[in-house]
Amino acid sequence: MKLATLRDGTRDGTLVVVRRDHAVFAKATGIAPTMQAALDDWANVEPKLRALADRLEKGEVEGTPVEVEQLASPLPRAYEWVDGSAYINHVILVRKARNAEPPPTLRTDPLVYQGGSGAFLAPTDDIPLADVEWGCDFESEIAVVLDDTPQGTTAAEAGRHVKLLMLVNDVTLRNLIPPELAKGFGFFQSKPASAFSPFAITPDELGGAWKEGRVHLRLQTWLNGELVGDTDAGPEMHFSFFDLVQHIAKTRSYTAGTIVGSGTVSNEDRARGISCLAEQRMVEIIESGSPKTPFMKPGDLVEIEMFDEAGRSLFGRIRQRVVQK
Amino acid sequence: MKLATLRDGTRDGTLVVVRRDHAVFAKATGIAPTMQAALDDWANVEPKLRALADRLEKGEVEGTPVEVEQLASPLPRAYEWVDGSAYINHVILVRKARNAEPPPTLRTDPLVYQGGSGAFLAPTDDIPLADVEWGCDFESEIAVVLDDTPQGTTAAEAGRHVKLLMLVNDVTLRNLIPPELAKGFGFFQSKPASAFSPFAITPDELGGAWKEGRVHLRLQTWLNGELVGDTDAGPEMHFSFFDLVQHIAKTRSYTAGTIVGSGTVSNEDRARGISCLAEQRMVEIIESGSPKTPFMKPGDLVEIEMFDEAGRSLFGRIRQRVVQK
Repeated sequence: MKLATLRDGTRDGTLVVVRRDHAVFAKATGIAPTMQAALDDWANVEPKLRALADRLEKGEVEGTPVEVEQLASPLPRAYEWVDGSAYINHVILVRKARNAEPPPTLRTDPLVYQGGSGAFLAPTDDIPLADVEWGCDFESEIAVVLDDTPQGTTAAEAGRHVKLLMLVNDVTLRNLIPPELAKGFGFFQSKPASAFSPFAITPDELGGAWKEGRVHLRLQTWLNGELVGDTDAGPEMHFSFFDLVQHIAKTRSYTAGTIVGSGTVSNEDRARGISCLAEQRMVEIIESGSPKTPFMKPGDLVEIEMFDEAGRSLFGRIRQRVVQK
Repeated sequence: MKLATLRDGTRDGTLVVVRRDHAVFAKATGIAPTMQAALDDWANVEPKLRALADRLEKGEVEGTPVEVEQLASPLPRAYEWVDGSAYINHVILVRKARNAEPPPTLRTDPLVYQGGSGAFLAPTDDIPLADVEWGCDFESEIAVVLDDTPQGTTAAEAGRHVKLLMLVNDVTLRNLIPPELAKGFGFFQSKPASAFSPFAITPDELGGAWKEGRVHLRLQTWLNGELVGDTDAGPEMHFSFFDLVQHIAKTRSYTAGTIVGSGTVSNEDRARGISCLAEQRMVEIIESGSPKTPFMKPGDLVEIEMFDEAGRSLFGRIRQRVVQK
């Protein structure tokens, strides 16, 4: 099942069910008004949404054509957005880029940070940039949406709490990071609003590609129309989504609709390209002594999408242009 | 005006207006179902809530007796919880306690972290502690609730976005902090669920004590019935709430209902006592070489309250007992 949120002038939009080919949608009116409302009562709501999705698939319900620009992020605002950094290659490269050592617990203790979740960008919203010197970067990631997840949930139990998956562009202001991390409290100003894919999908839509808390498919990223990343999201995700859930549930509980991100998808094989510019710049430093690729500037366009093995888009496309704010 | 959220078995509870003496409440039914709904439409809703509060004050509306145990935190879950650390004395003492230097920008660049906001404890909820070795501490703080606050809001503009004030117990697991901060991503497991005061109040309830984004009153803390802190929340708040809002709005916008905390209220004058045990332990280390006061253990009771100059309670009392989870 694929879901989306239609912009309707309200804060949380209207929940819609989307046909598997992304061509048409049907409003979930009468089932759940918003994505958050659906997640708040998922056990009751999910079968009804699936029944509607089935009827839409079979043509028994009239669909309205999808216009991606009319969609908000599936959760236009969420109660929590917890982003991991589960691809070890990304951690190593990005820390090299700021002359920082990877933590000694790199492979045993997941890195996560708490992100802002009150005002996400839509999948096709511009990225407002007030100062090009901030070093605006994209980060192409995968995220899961949880239902109520109690304190003490283990990795073995985590799978049952994953209700939906999405893609994310975790926009990052690279040049604000070093002074911010030097203060010791983690990211804040360096993490402006993120944007999510048009469609949030249930794990069964991934078939066998959803395995032990990882998505075994390629995540593609284009910058100004050029494919810059075709990274494998599967084997190099050192900590699975299930590991991340166990980590974050050690000392507290989570409400339905909490979003957990994978961190930038990253492969050791450089031929796979990049899911953020910081990695590209680090590779250039290693190879030639200095970075050649600039960070994004007004006018630049980043696109992120994932296809299944038959070449069908799974989540729709994040498509964002940087604009001067 | 004073507001609260009545537990009713739903996730977000029922919004109620509370009489100034905290004795009785009236449901805001027909005005706004929940605190978040009120904040989402504050300009329309506030005058109606104030009219109801007036009638309640005059006895024109029948009030129901307040039982604090029936109240949730005013926002049982919020879209963002951003906590500052605006009292310089606290930063210096706590960093000494973990052998860390205060950042060189201590007095020019506010410290803030993004906290978990999806599942707050109620003001009288037990604090569930799985492991006493985690070093469970309280932190007595003040917080403001914002309406929609755009990116680029300045300190001079911030006042108009502050709609409500509350007290907070920002529970902290001290012994989880050093390994967590060593990883460079800030707090996460070390910050379990916070609890807020029973009542959220509009700034006018503070009269002249609300001045330039600071609350010029004493914040009191009791541990197991003993007054351990009687700290002045005013002059030593180095960065005002308005400064904190300007800081966090540099690179993104905030949705209505975002909560911003002051950080632990702390005074240089040790006679004022403490708003967290970490400070007490640091003073002991300075005075005698080692800490004598243990962190909280199951059975310990922490209470936090603030009174106006006439001795009237402003926010009601946070009253939480630590229990073995």
